[in-house]
Amino acid sequence: MSKLNQKALSIFALGGVGEIGKNMYVIQYADDIVVIDAGLKFPEEEMLGIDIVIPDITYLQENKDKIRGILITHGHEDHIGALSYVLRHLNVPVYATKLTIGLIEVKLKEAGLLGEAKLNLIDNKSEVELGCFTASFFKTNHSIPDSVGVCLDTPEGCIVHTGDFKFDQTPVNNQMSDMAKMAKIGERGVLALLSDSTNAERPGFTGSEREVGQAIKEQFHKCKGRIVVATFASNIHRIQQVIDAAALYDRKVTVIGRSMVNVVNIAIDLGYLNVPEGMLVEPEEINKLPAERVVILSTGSQGEPMSALTRMARSAHRKADILPGDTVLIAATPIPGNEKYVARTVDQLFRIGADVIYGSNIHVSGHGSAEELKLMLNLMKPKYFIPIHGEFRMLRQHALLAEQCGVQPENIFLIDNGDTVEISGGKARYGPKVNSGIVLIDGLGVGDVGNIVLRDRKLLSQDGILVVVVTLSKQNGTILSGPDIISRGFVYVRESEALLEEANRIVGQTLNRCMEENVNEWSSLKTNVRDALGRFLYEQTRRRPMILPIIMEV
Amino acid sequence: MSKLNQKALSIFALGGVGEIGKNMYVIQYADDIVVIDAGLKFPEEEMLGIDIVIPDITYLQENKDKIRGILITHGHEDHIGALSYVLRHLNVPVYATKLTIGLIEVKLKEAGLLGEAKLNLIDNKSEVELGCFTASFFKTNHSIPDSVGVCLDTPEGCIVHTGDFKFDQTPVNNQMSDMAKMAKIGERGVLALLSDSTNAERPGFTGSEREVGQAIKEQFHKCKGRIVVATFASNIHRIQQVIDAAALYDRKVTVIGRSMVNVVNIAIDLGYLNVPEGMLVEPEEINKLPAERVVILSTGSQGEPMSALTRMARSAHRKADILPGDTVLIAATPIPGNEKYVARTVDQLFRIGADVIYGSNIHVSGHGSAEELKLMLNLMKPKYFIPIHGEFRMLRQHALLAEQCGVQPENIFLIDNGDTVEISGGKARYGPKVNSGIVLIDGLGVGDVGNIVLRDRKLLSQDGILVVVVTLSKQNGTILSGPDIISRGFVYVRESEALLEEANRIVGQTLNRCMEENVNEWSSLKTNVRDALGRFLYEQTRRRPMILPIIMEV
Repeated sequence: MSKLNQKALSIFALGGVGEIGKNMYVIQYADDIVVIDAGLKFPEEEMLGIDIVIPDITYLQENKDKIRGILITHGHEDHIGALSYVLRHLNVPVYATKLTIGLIEVKLKEAGLLGEAKLNLIDNKSEVELGCFTASFFKTNHSIPDSVGVCLDTPEGCIVHTGDFKFDQTPVNNQMSDMAKMAKIGERGVLALLSDSTNAERPGFTGSEREVGQAIKEQFHKCKGRIVVATFASNIHRIQQVIDAAALYDRKVTVIGRSMVNVVNIAIDLGYLNVPEGMLVEPEEINKLPAERVVILSTGSQGEPMSALTRMARSAHRKADILPGDTVLIAATPIPGNEKYVARTVDQLFRIGADVIYGSNIHVSGHGSAEELKLMLNLMKPKYFIPIHGEFRMLRQHALLAEQCGVQPENIFLIDNGDTVEISGGKARYGPKVNSGIVLIDGLGVGDVGNIVLRDRKLLSQDGILVVVVTLSKQNGTILSGPDIISRGFVYVRESEALLEEANRIVGQTLNRCMEENVNEWSSLKTNVRDALGRFLYEQTRRRPMILPIIMEV
Repeated sequence: MSKLNQKALSIFALGGVGEIGKNMYVIQYADDIVVIDAGLKFPEEEMLGIDIVIPDITYLQENKDKIRGILITHGHEDHIGALSYVLRHLNVPVYATKLTIGLIEVKLKEAGLLGEAKLNLIDNKSEVELGCFTASFFKTNHSIPDSVGVCLDTPEGCIVHTGDFKFDQTPVNNQMSDMAKMAKIGERGVLALLSDSTNAERPGFTGSEREVGQAIKEQFHKCKGRIVVATFASNIHRIQQVIDAAALYDRKVTVIGRSMVNVVNIAIDLGYLNVPEGMLVEPEEINKLPAERVVILSTGSQGEPMSALTRMARSAHRKADILPGDTVLIAATPIPGNEKYVARTVDQLFRIGADVIYGSNIHVSGHGSAEELKLMLNLMKPKYFIPIHGEFRMLRQHALLAEQCGVQPENIFLIDNGDTVEISGGKARYGPKVNSGIVLIDGLGVGDVGNIVLRDRKLLSQDGILVVVVTLSKQNGTILSGPDIISRGFVYVRESEALLEEANRIVGQTLNRCMEENVNEWSSLKTNVRDALGRFLYEQTRRRPMILPIIMEV
């Protein structure tokens, strides 16, 4: 790992390129570092038992004293979810807008870090000095209020990081994107633009959140029974529109699901959600109301097995049920990988007699489509372009859009996490690689699970384990007890008695042969047992369970 | 489990309703049984280590002597994939069309069952006497040639099973659906219709396979380098269109991937695929050809990790590579659950510099959409309707379509596997439940893995296992050796030495306390160890690994 060029501006990602999630971008000039976002990612299917994944911040830990601050673009988990892990190691100042700080505080409180944390409130008028950098901010539209993009003035020029954005011309809270400010930044000259690629593959424009409100109202208009609305807990715009529809049709609203309750409370406290007096009721109250007066606002739009909606669908929720005749609006589309969970939940809801409205009619994305990405490119008119927030094909598609908007192909950098773009004297090139990677979090363990452990979990999950135990005599190496074979996750023991007996016989035979041949080093004994038993089991079953020989000596 | 009504016609599914896959339908009257299809299903994500899932055929085994035959509607795995397991227990006659028999023969040969199997060729003119039943067949369009629907004349009236179908008005092989025959069956009177619900949620009509051919040709027209086409191995219509495009643009074709090679060979042998003389070349030949003369036809359109396309993308295929400048057409859409695999493969292909055409432009479904389902309903004009082939929401949507087409709501039966519909004297009602369920196949094991084994695999996959071994003296119960703790899939041992040492101490302490308190029954000792260690580990790590205490006595 070579050192970064001290006389250049270096830009790199510790997470967020070549993937969706765990966003963390770093901009460094000499002894000053600014970090943008500190997000988490949910584990891939093959990361068995892992709860969340965060960026490896070794580079930041090694350059702790240079970090002037962490700027947070908005309050989604993939932008704030690693903060409590990062601040434990680097207690540097954090800058964020009001709602974002509200959401961060909840996390830091849970982690016991709220006391020392240096949280600083910013808005779209703030200017923040960060060593040799000056940061300012512009409002964007996204599926959570109070999202901003970052304009970072550096000794080499202005770097713009869009955060997540779309251009919603009719936003629910009437907070328009700072188009004029973006245009001014563009006119002043943008050296490099880092822009959100999530929807680069989608042509056209993303719909306005207000369209979802209209669709929700239409459903409320039609519906005579109880209404259940499941959506993302953090989509306060959408929650506002559910509240508005409830007000229009004179229904009370109850909120179910921990994260939804948290967000609604914070949003009301901070003034991001307008709820008419007396509209919110406790879940216990809804059974006393007539069906046509009830709205249940719930988490679980992704069909997560433990979410409120899924538990209600299984009649396994402590506080609320879904009843025949209820209408369930799933106001979300499945995140890739969740399609099956959502489908199962929909099936379950239909089976209990609810009507379910699902699919793309009552959802719009929070990310701009191709035309909006081009609009951003044309407002900013950057010299250099680095597509961020996206898997490789999205970054690549975004690069093609940038070319269409006049960015020179050689000025577009398709980077992986850890790749640096180094700009010096107005010229950009690839710089040295920076340490990057992933840290797996499993329960309280941070980084104590890695490839070997995951490989073992994978093996165990496929064919289970056989533990072979034998006790040998210290004096003469004879077998005092065993061999005993205990299996888990391999076969039904009762139905495979003959197989396991034969396995036992083979282990005994192998051990005896080893004794005769004076193979008495433990590692050789174990290898012999593992090989003989593994071969036998594969022949008989075409499976390869993990085999764990244990030799005790007394 | 009560007995079926001997004086009624009974219709039920052993697989295929409430799910996609493992289709198997049974029609019984007194001592005569006809089975339609014998398919497999790929395992759900939580069925760890399982290869395939087939229907539980206990009912058929118990009524072996009554089975007059198995009718197969077409050659897809979800309709023929369980045959080799079923015929092992029930060597009854099988009836299928020419291509379908060709594909079945490959399976039976692999299973060593081809010798005894009683395979009977049928076509759309055949009439087959099966006890009190007479079966006849009508041609349908589907994503594999030689698909048929079944018309079964029974003592109660005519039962129609559509198989999988769409109405393709411009089929690639010019084999139209037998619309006139369907209309005649309808005019004669259909007592009950069992119809394919896969695409019941999709409005409108499904596109013609010929549109895909047009899209493929356009890509061939544009493309100057090598072309790789990945699609479903069994979609012979699509393979034909790739061959046709290759002929048009003077390219040679090589076939990669075991299942694609198999199908192409069978299809050529049986006359279902027209390949110009000399067009097919061995993979070894393609490197000798100029790039603009090459087509690679490959499996892997679902991004399956071990498929030819994915291995080529990783440069891990023995016979062929994908090179920068190649164009890859993924002529398929992801089956639900496979989206992530496909996305990864696309990313990988882009990374190595290939151009990738993916998404819905070069694929159409093999299943009819809502308007086609209505067309079938209107052709058949059934008295009773049983939607089949679909998860619950699809069946439900299909039921709504049937209502729109004039089927009385009370004459629509939404059944689960094992539910019987009993028709007697022209009146249908729900009959007794029949034994149904799933059989899991893991390697050579058929049914030796069930819920307990899967639960163990799930546990093992989440947090791994700790094996605690101790050797006690037979005489006085003192510890002769151990306790030793071996862990797999739990933590990195090197980074968690202190944790494991403390765990060891706690086990020792627990055992000693047990000795002092004269707890020396093994099961109590084990329970004490499991509880103490489990509690400690959960406090320290918030994980719950499987704990397997093993006590040896010498």
